[in-house]
Formats: sequence, structure tokens, C-alpha cells
Amino acid sequence: MKFTLTKDVIQQAMQKLRPVLNAKGTIPILAGIKVEAMADCIMLTASNASESIIHRILPNGETTTIDNEGAAVLTKEAFEVTSKLSGEITFELVEKNLQVTQGKKTSLSFTTMAPEEFPKIGANPTSAPIVLTGQKFSELISRTVFAVAKTETRPVLTGVNLQVGESLQAISTDSHRLAKVTIPLEEKLDEVSITIPGKMLDHALKAFDLSKGILLSIDTSQIAMANGNTIYYSRLLEGNYPDTQRLIPTTFDGELTLDAKEFTESLQLLSTLSSEGVIKLEVDGLFVKLDSKNETAKGHRELSFIEYTGEAGFTVSFSSGFLLEALKRIDSDAIKLNFCGAQRPFTVEGINEKTKQVQLILPVRTY
Amino acid sequence: MKFTLTKDVIQQAMQKLRPVLNAKGTIPILAGIKVEAMADCIMLTASNASESIIHRILPNGETTTIDNEGAAVLTKEAFEVTSKLSGEITFELVEKNLQVTQGKKTSLSFTTMAPEEFPKIGANPTSAPIVLTGQKFSELISRTVFAVAKTETRPVLTGVNLQVGESLQAISTDSHRLAKVTIPLEEKLDEVSITIPGKMLDHALKAFDLSKGILLSIDTSQIAMANGNTIYYSRLLEGNYPDTQRLIPTTFDGELTLDAKEFTESLQLLSTLSSEGVIKLEVDGLFVKLDSKNETAKGHRELSFIEYTGEAGFTVSFSSGFLLEALKRIDSDAIKLNFCGAQRPFTVEGINEKTKQVQLILPVRTY
Repeated sequence: MKFTLTKDVIQQAMQKLRPVLNAKGTIPILAGIKVEAMADCIMLTASNASESIIHRILPNGETTTIDNEGAAVLTKEAFEVTSKLSGEITFELVEKNLQVTQGKKTSLSFTTMAPEEFPKIGANPTSAPIVLTGQKFSELISRTVFAVAKTETRPVLTGVNLQVGESLQAISTDSHRLAKVTIPLEEKLDEVSITIPGKMLDHALKAFDLSKGILLSIDTSQIAMANGNTIYYSRLLEGNYPDTQRLIPTTFDGELTLDAKEFTESLQLLSTLSSEGVIKLEVDGLFVKLDSKNETAKGHRELSFIEYTGEAGFTVSFSSGFLLEALKRIDSDAIKLNFCGAQRPFTVEGINEKTKQVQLILPVRTY
Repeated sequence: MKFTLTKDVIQQAMQKLRPVLNAKGTIPILAGIKVEAMADCIMLTASNASESIIHRILPNGETTTIDNEGAAVLTKEAFEVTSKLSGEITFELVEKNLQVTQGKKTSLSFTTMAPEEFPKIGANPTSAPIVLTGQKFSELISRTVFAVAKTETRPVLTGVNLQVGESLQAISTDSHRLAKVTIPLEEKLDEVSITIPGKMLDHALKAFDLSKGILLSIDTSQIAMANGNTIYYSRLLEGNYPDTQRLIPTTFDGELTLDAKEFTESLQLLSTLSSEGVIKLEVDGLFVKLDSKNETAKGHRELSFIEYTGEAGFTVSFSSGFLLEALKRIDSDAIKLNFCGAQRPFTVEGINEKTKQVQLILPVRTY
């Protein structure tokens, strides 16, 4: 095995592999990267018990050349050390040791492991692949994955539920808030519901070039997500995802429209002066009043609203952290809060948003 | 007490107080900031058991106005929250509560503590003050403080020893390396030797505006360092600082001159492939050879040297981390390593440096 790469090409590949490599595992060979130099590409594979990534580097005669085919499992240090090198860097397998050389004055040597001991990575899709633009994939995932449960009390809630059928729906909830994004499909696909660990989706988002398309292939126990020269594999979470449809209110008795920037800045200010981030919102005839307090401080701010339909004096308390996280996913100058009673979940949405999404927050009962 | 400040003025003051405020203490009132609004300034004091800082904000009729005198101990939140505000921010003490208001729509309230319970901060200098430019103070401290001992085995070594007399000398050592900077004084001062905790000097460097001068006043148990509108007080370390003069070699039997950038980059590369950062250096007739190794990797690089006087085949092993830290303090394109045997400490210096300094490294005996 012998090939020559530039530092940039290696750094770019490592960027894609890193999320998987950083996960701590117990199987020694999985700390390494399987490298296969083939006639038409160099294939890099990283894996841990739950997620894997395959990235191909294509030769181009300039920054990448392949001299001899072969395979080995390298330590990640063998690639990471190149951040300290420059120019063309040659990797050559000599009697089970990897020689890394740059010019005549620098030679580094790394032990390797046997490639046949590295687990086989691959998928057997059970249904037709789903094709999305990078943009749509990003909206689907980044607007839901933040709301997954952070604790393992109900493991299935640590994932994003993906429902394929007439449309593509991503749903997440941690029992205190819920996020849902719906993306129309050009043609109806076979119905399937899977739940993908939130952490893995974060990793995939980081590894992907979102200017390129994404192809999702679902297997009985894993999902493969292909993007450019990268394929990311994640295990699926077992267990039935709860039916969340009945949690989302369809009619409202109060709708409050606010300037998004002013509202966000006010929540950020008051959340620092609140016990556990709880803020009380009250709509009176002229203003929206926001109040927070903790052991040593109290905060109060009045905002003018753009529009309000509902009872005067309506009051609701909520976690400012959850609302701020939802607001980050809404791309609009004006936002609307939809209420159906102080103790019932409310939704927040942008005015004239293109992507169909629901951001639902449960009020905090005590204040 | 009532005064109005802009966000920038508050942020700038908090920047100076923060190192002292961040230190964890056990005395509740020291978690706060004593604020005294006087006719001619607002004085802010922060303190913990070991270090204190006094910062004055002067009224200027524009960004700072003082309406009523008074004093209180405020929580640091009362100032930190202003990072979320803008424009003019008014602080007013109303029945032991601090009201912070911005315009008519935002009002925040904070509990305060009694100013008379805050410890008195001040100095009784026992000798004439030492006046330095910010630049000289920075050279004195930043080129020595990094080499203080990080463990408490010998507490006095966790500080920088300052020797006043015909010149001003700062010395630090952790027994593996030593740094010493000497700054000439215009006139001889009374001889005094004190040791200042390294951490406090780091804090002072951060708080100071180095374009302004520094005035050092030494007390029996503390040092006051004044800079612009800021005075930083630090306790001194007890115990005698060891005599380091005899550790510094005065004659050498090998002198090696190298390109600073190439040598630094080579050390950075090889240190990642070394066990505990140890690198072996060998000078042969044509090249300097650097070698490192760890359990899974080996590294080798050859450098050409600018000049070498000494035995051919000279070999020394050292901690690359210590040498890299010393090199960072040397402002020169070419550096010289001065050896007197493979087992004896060696020094590294810049060619044509303006400030007199010694950076001494002990070799590593086993490789």
C-alpha cells in the first residue's frame, strides 16, 4: 500500500471521521481507521459499536495519487500528525509498519493492525432510498434533534423519530417540549417509522457537505446516510416511539405576535435572573410583561406586541431555555405564540415560514 | 447611591475584576463586589483570601455620571447582566436593593450586602515604589511565570521570586527548568527579595493595560501593583526562595545555532509521537537529528544548523514541552542552545535579544 496526499485532503477526511473516532469504545481495533488503497480510491472506515463512517478519497493526479494497492488499520495519530506537516505526504506500508514521509528530512513510522480484523460495515436496505437535498436534510434534523431527551429514562426518546410515507416527518420530544418537521415527498413511499439516536444525527450533520444531496437507506437495524463521498451508518433505537399526534393542539384561544429579536433578547436577559430559567409572561391591554426572579434578583421587562387575539390578562409561565432553543430554529422576523390555556402546551411559529414545523412547549405549572 | 454607566464601561471594569471574582472562596461577602460611589469616582473592589483588586471608574459626563454618593456590596450578577443590555444603564440603591434600569421598559432588582462588612483593602509599603513601563513588567512576568511549579510539593516554587537591588530580577523554577529575566534599574533600590504566587501574576497581567506604566509597592506580606485606574494586591509566599545562581552555567562546551521557526515546528511534530514528550537531539557533521518514539510510533527529522561549535556526535534528550515553552518567550529568528555535557542543564537564548533572560532546561537522563 502506497499513496500520496496533501495535508488539506487528509484534514478534510479526518474532519468527517472525527465524530465517530472520538466516541470511546472498548474494542481496540475500533480506535483505528481502516485504510484501503484501491485502483480508483482510498477508502477510510471508522466505526464504534453504534455508528460507522466510510469516506472515499478519489485520486486526481495532483493532490492525491495511489501508487500501490493494499489495506491496513492505522492509528488515528498517523493521520492527525499530518496537521504538523505540509506539502505532499506519502503513506507507505512496509512490513506491517506505516511509513509517513514528507520530503527527505522527515520520516515517521507507525504500527498498524490487520485489516481483516476490522468489522465489516455495510447495509442491506429493505426499502427504496429517500433522496433529499442537503438543505432539507439539515432542516429536518437540526430543527428536531435539539429537543431529544438528554437522559436515558425512556431510551427511545433520546432519538429522533422519522416517519416515512406520504411525507417525511421528524419528531422529537423530551416530555417537556416537542419539535416536529414535515417535508413533502414527490411520491408516496412505503410506510416506515424508525428512531435514530440524536447524538448520531448530530455527528452526521457535522460530517456532511450540505451543499450536496443526501440519500437515506433504511435497514432493519440501521440507517445509512450517503452524502458526496461519505456514508454515515447509525444503529436504530429499539422500542415504539410514542404517538405524539394527540399532544399537538389544533385549535387555540389566544395568539400573540411579537418581534422575534426583541422577544429573544428579553428572554436571554431575564433567564439569567430566573430560578431554573422560568419566566412568567402576561399579556395586558398594551404590553407583554415578562417577569423572572431568583434568590437574589428580580427582572421585569415590558414589550409592545404586534398583534394579540385572546383574553386580556392571560398569564403563562415557561422554561426560557426551551423557548429560546425553539426560537433558534425559527427563521422569521416575527413569531407567533399560540395558546390554549395557561396549563396547556403552547406552540411557537414563524410568520410566513417555508418549512412546515411545530415547536411545542409545556408550561411550567408552579411559579 | 445612584450612577449611570454605559455597557462598555461596565464590561471593561468586569474584565479587570473577573480573575479575582472567579476564584472560589468560603466567605459569602467576598462573592460580591464592593461599590463606592464618591464625588469623583466609582470605586469597585473585589477580593478573596489571597488577592484583591480595586478599580476606579471616573465620571466623564458622557458614559459615566454620578448622581448620589453611597456604597453597597453587589452580587457580580448585577454587573454581569448588563452584557444583555445596551445604552445607558442606571444603578440606584433603594432600601438596600439595587435597581438596575435601562430606559422605561426594563427594571431589574438585586439584593445587596452591607459595605462595612467587606474587608478593608490597602497597603503600607515598606520601601520606595518601583516604577516600570507596562512592556518591561510584561517581559519580566510573562517570561518567567510559565516556569513556576504546578504542584504544591515546595509551595515557594509556585511563585515568581522577585529580587530588587541594583537591578530587578524575576526567577522561577519547577526543578526541571528555570527562567530568569533581569531588568536594569535607573538607580539602586533597597535590597528585597519576595515571592509572588504565579497564579496572581497571571491575573494581574490579564487585568492590566500594558500601554500604561506599572508601580510596584512591597509590603511585609503583600505586593500592590498599580496600573492606570487599577490596583492589584497579592499576598506573598512565605519561605526562602532557593539560591538559583549556582544552577545557571556560565561556561559552555557546545553552542548550536538553529532557525527558530524550523526548530519549533520540528519539536511540535515530534512531541506528538513521543513518550512523555521526550525528544533526542544529536548533532552530527551536517545535520541536527531529532528523534522521538512512543508505543506505536517513531519520528525522525533532520535539520540543517546555522552554526555549531562543539564535539561531533553530541547527544542530549529533553522534554519538548519545556523547550517549546521557553522558545515561546524568545523573540528572535535564530536561537542558540548552549550545552555543557549531555547530563548538565543547557540554556536556550535568542540571537541579539534586547531583554536579558536565561531559559534553562534540565536534560532527561533516560531515553
